[in-house]
Amino acid sequence: MTAGATPEERPTRGARRRAQTRARLLDAARALFARQGVDATAIAEITEHADVGFGSFYNHFASKEEIVEVVLSEALDAQGEIVDALTEQLEDPAEVVAVAHRHFVAQSREDPHLGWLLVRLDASHRVMTRALGSRARRDLERGIASGRFDVADAGVAFFDTAGALMLVMRGVLDGNLGPEADIHHAEGVLRVLGLTPEDAAEVAHRPLPEREATRS
Amino acid sequence: MTAGATPEERPTRGARRRAQTRARLLDAARALFARQGVDATAIAEITEHADVGFGSFYNHFASKEEIVEVVLSEALDAQGEIVDALTEQLEDPAEVVAVAHRHFVAQSREDPHLGWLLVRLDASHRVMTRALGSRARRDLERGIASGRFDVADAGVAFFDTAGALMLVMRGVLDGNLGPEADIHHAEGVLRVLGLTPEDAAEVAHRPLPEREATRS
Repeated sequence: MTAGATPEERPTRGARRRAQTRARLLDAARALFARQGVDATAIAEITEHADVGFGSFYNHFASKEEIVEVVLSEALDAQGEIVDALTEQLEDPAEVVAVAHRHFVAQSREDPHLGWLLVRLDASHRVMTRALGSRARRDLERGIASGRFDVADAGVAFFDTAGALMLVMRGVLDGNLGPEADIHHAEGVLRVLGLTPEDAAEVAHRPLPEREATRS
Repeated sequence: MTAGATPEERPTRGARRRAQTRARLLDAARALFARQGVDATAIAEITEHADVGFGSFYNHFASKEEIVEVVLSEALDAQGEIVDALTEQLEDPAEVVAVAHRHFVAQSREDPHLGWLLVRLDASHRVMTRALGSRARRDLERGIASGRFDVADAGVAFFDTAGALMLVMRGVLDGNLGPEADIHHAEGVLRVLGLTPEDAAEVAHRPLPEREATRS
């Protein structure tokens, strides 16, 4: 809008630079959160790592909490895509749910910084119900429609199973649960969804689809 | 330790005054948290309401988070005692667990400020597993010992059911779950603990013990 600006050009170039700075800040935050955790990372470290002036952080994010939320949201989307890839060949809705829950529990053990990011407080609750909520509800409804699941209230079943997952992840991160926590948690989830204990155990113990394949 | 202090007297009188100030701060915090919620309450409001100098807050608590944790811990103990009173006449371990879970879900609806206090973040996780953890584990183990419950891993079952409860309380507080959320949540919990869906529904639908009696 400044005199002499070519309307099609100036904003585009500015927007591009802006997007690059934002992406650099996000890359830096992601790397630092993964390496040292969210709580140990200061905004100044993010800007230094991104080679950006401290003040310009605030042109992109209102607070550390906001960049955490964006990183978290992207991480959840990425995890959701991994789980989708892991489960796309599976026919049994119960196995889909078991694999998804086992993946997140195992992930907490293998990548604790990601785990802590995912179970973080308020942001996590909001973002998780939004980002993974639609996937989880889709899997839940598929099982209900096919008759494999039987619940009195799909909404409560969703909160039951998501809350159970978050606390089990936390128990794993705190070192309070054993190596088979993922299997036993999946059994509990499938019981909530109406499978008999025998069926739940059988499905939860099935070998996991190859996770390596999705990482190539 | 000052020259002239009577060792048996001075510390006692000082300690008494100290305890009174601490109790006044806790009473004020409890009242303000209940009336307007934790997040809306500043330390200055607590000290003003308690009629105590702002600075002396820090002689008793390192931060707002610390007084929140003490209030929360006391609230959880009180809730634990209410649930114990509600369930002491019950013979069926499954009904004990159902009543406890239904109580907390219903409580979130009836007293949202208490509900928000209970589901609060990190403090809540730590305090809840400590304060209610021993009661919940006792009820769980009683059911396992009697053969009423059947779980592969009592630790995972505890995290599953506690996490489910916390997220369902939150769903109720956010207005995302219907009026029967407490019953349907209790059904899910009992399924996790190995009851058949039919048994779980029957127990979860039993009339609640009179809660009024415990409030007199």
